[in-house]
Amino acid sequence: MNIVITGGAGFLGARLARTLLAQGGFRLNSAAAQPIRSVLLVDRAPAPADLAADARVRSLVGDLNDLLAPGPQGVPAIPTGTDVVYHLAAAVSGECEADFDLGMRSNLAATEALLSACRALGTQPTVVFTSSLAVFGLVHDQPALPPPDVITDLTLPTPQTSYGIQKFIGEQLMADYTRKGFIRGRSVRLMTVSVRPGKPNGAASSFFSGMVREPLAGVRGACPVTPDTLVALASPGNTIAGLVRIGQTSDAEWGPRTALNMPALVTTVGDMAKALGTVAGQAATDLIDWTPDENIRRIVKSWPGRVESARARGLGLTSDPDFETIVRDYIRENPQAITLALPKA
Amino acid sequence: MNIVITGGAGFLGARLARTLLAQGGFRLNSAAAQPIRSVLLVDRAPAPADLAADARVRSLVGDLNDLLAPGPQGVPAIPTGTDVVYHLAAAVSGECEADFDLGMRSNLAATEALLSACRALGTQPTVVFTSSLAVFGLVHDQPALPPPDVITDLTLPTPQTSYGIQKFIGEQLMADYTRKGFIRGRSVRLMTVSVRPGKPNGAASSFFSGMVREPLAGVRGACPVTPDTLVALASPGNTIAGLVRIGQTSDAEWGPRTALNMPALVTTVGDMAKALGTVAGQAATDLIDWTPDENIRRIVKSWPGRVESARARGLGLTSDPDFETIVRDYIRENPQAITLALPKA
Repeated sequence: MNIVITGGAGFLGARLARTLLAQGGFRLNSAAAQPIRSVLLVDRAPAPADLAADARVRSLVGDLNDLLAPGPQGVPAIPTGTDVVYHLAAAVSGECEADFDLGMRSNLAATEALLSACRALGTQPTVVFTSSLAVFGLVHDQPALPPPDVITDLTLPTPQTSYGIQKFIGEQLMADYTRKGFIRGRSVRLMTVSVRPGKPNGAASSFFSGMVREPLAGVRGACPVTPDTLVALASPGNTIAGLVRIGQTSDAEWGPRTALNMPALVTTVGDMAKALGTVAGQAATDLIDWTPDENIRRIVKSWPGRVESARARGLGLTSDPDFETIVRDYIRENPQAITLALPKA
Repeated sequence: MNIVITGGAGFLGARLARTLLAQGGFRLNSAAAQPIRSVLLVDRAPAPADLAADARVRSLVGDLNDLLAPGPQGVPAIPTGTDVVYHLAAAVSGECEADFDLGMRSNLAATEALLSACRALGTQPTVVFTSSLAVFGLVHDQPALPPPDVITDLTLPTPQTSYGIQKFIGEQLMADYTRKGFIRGRSVRLMTVSVRPGKPNGAASSFFSGMVREPLAGVRGACPVTPDTLVALASPGNTIAGLVRIGQTSDAEWGPRTALNMPALVTTVGDMAKALGTVAGQAATDLIDWTPDENIRRIVKSWPGRVESARARGLGLTSDPDFETIVRDYIRENPQAITLALPKA
């Protein structure tokens, strides 16, 4: 098995690579597991040191659109012999709102080029495309387009951000490339991933991690929305487990070529803060700045809170049990990032 | 008012141009009518003689993608001062199934280039995009994606042809360009247009016209599907009336940025044949060849029959009353194409 991960040096990409490499084998289309021979991490940044030290890992550093352009030796990012592609690379929502052309290039043109390169292999590789909850844009002022009470796998997405539009277009391209037999497509809509370690990024959803991560590091974390804001989220570990499983589904298990909603823990920002307090004490919640930001609030308000994931559950995927567990997992997995004195367990 | 029509020398494009020119004025965003100063017909073919003879008409002949590429004097197909664009040009469904790259270029890349050129004007032109009923692809073998009983403006499209995918992606691009304020977008899903005059084209739906047009010309016409096949159709005249009205809707009337379903007359192929018989006699229906074609049948079976058009009806658009009326209209509008001796009225 030769696996490519775009965005492979990022947080999710690197964690996915580690999980796949630890697993050692990969069941293509639910066949018997074959050993993973190579994992190619394509990213603007080099692979983290632990991954670079694995003999099976190769790092390809550069602009994704450049690396997807066919050259004399084929397409650098999708080499001959590629069996599986996890396409995680993307410009995030805040960036795409600020710079329309950046989003069209990094999300739409890159996805088209990636699918074209996969088709050119002629071997029907499996492609896992990470779409997003952000395809669902709730509209609150149009009687002809009432916001649905619950989002299911069959709900009409009406994206209200360029990022959401580009992801939804990616789902359509994936479906048609699959129908034509060019690839074996698996489009999944990731929930908001929380708690992400590291630094804030340009995503409008960045605060869903920052409001927990920053207080645990002893610094102030902003929450730009009100406590009653609903959020459909998943922990990093649960998100990666889903991606690993879905890459190995058979065509029959997978079913329709449309995207599926990954399992979501539906909670509120206020309950997230409470869970942080339960695990890390009042000192942690005191570090949350409830500072409204109208730009962020408007984007987040257009994202649905109540999400159902019937197809994902049919594949055996489950949501995280509660946010307290997610906070405890974050603390256990990122001891170096915890500066706040925690209450004794 | 300066109006551009892509596909402007085609059947629908030319008829749209004639109707607009006869109307003389155009109500942009429902403002007071302004005189139509120019109509630019962009097509691979030159404008029909009657249109070319109108001093307000200019014909731009060539490959649409070439004509949408920015040159030293701007984009030829979208000149400075363009107020309204009707984007009708497209490769049709059968062609796009046979040649994937052709569809991606003619439908997806051309639509992207057109929207980009409209944005570059910096004047927020009105763009009417003719999407299609073909975005709705019914799937009959996937329990997770049951075919809906009725298609509404809110039904999730799951296209089962490349043409349908490309049109649905066009709708998404239209929505985001509108949201960003680059254009005033109006995406409409045309029903199957019947009866089209002229020759068969590469569309899988071509027979919906040919099975009436050919017998009326005294030659055999093929019907590749069974009589009980449902079809949601509209006459040429009704289709054009809808496009003329929709180009002049205000933003408030238009409502959501999603596409709307044009009004449909829901009937069956068998009832279409009966209506032909009622108007043109047994001699006409005897000329229909009921010859099943598995390729066509498979595509048509994935198109929905029962279609509702709440938003279009809210704009005052109505469906054709019955297929008999459509056949009579065709005969009246195309006397030169009727060779069969018709029963006395």
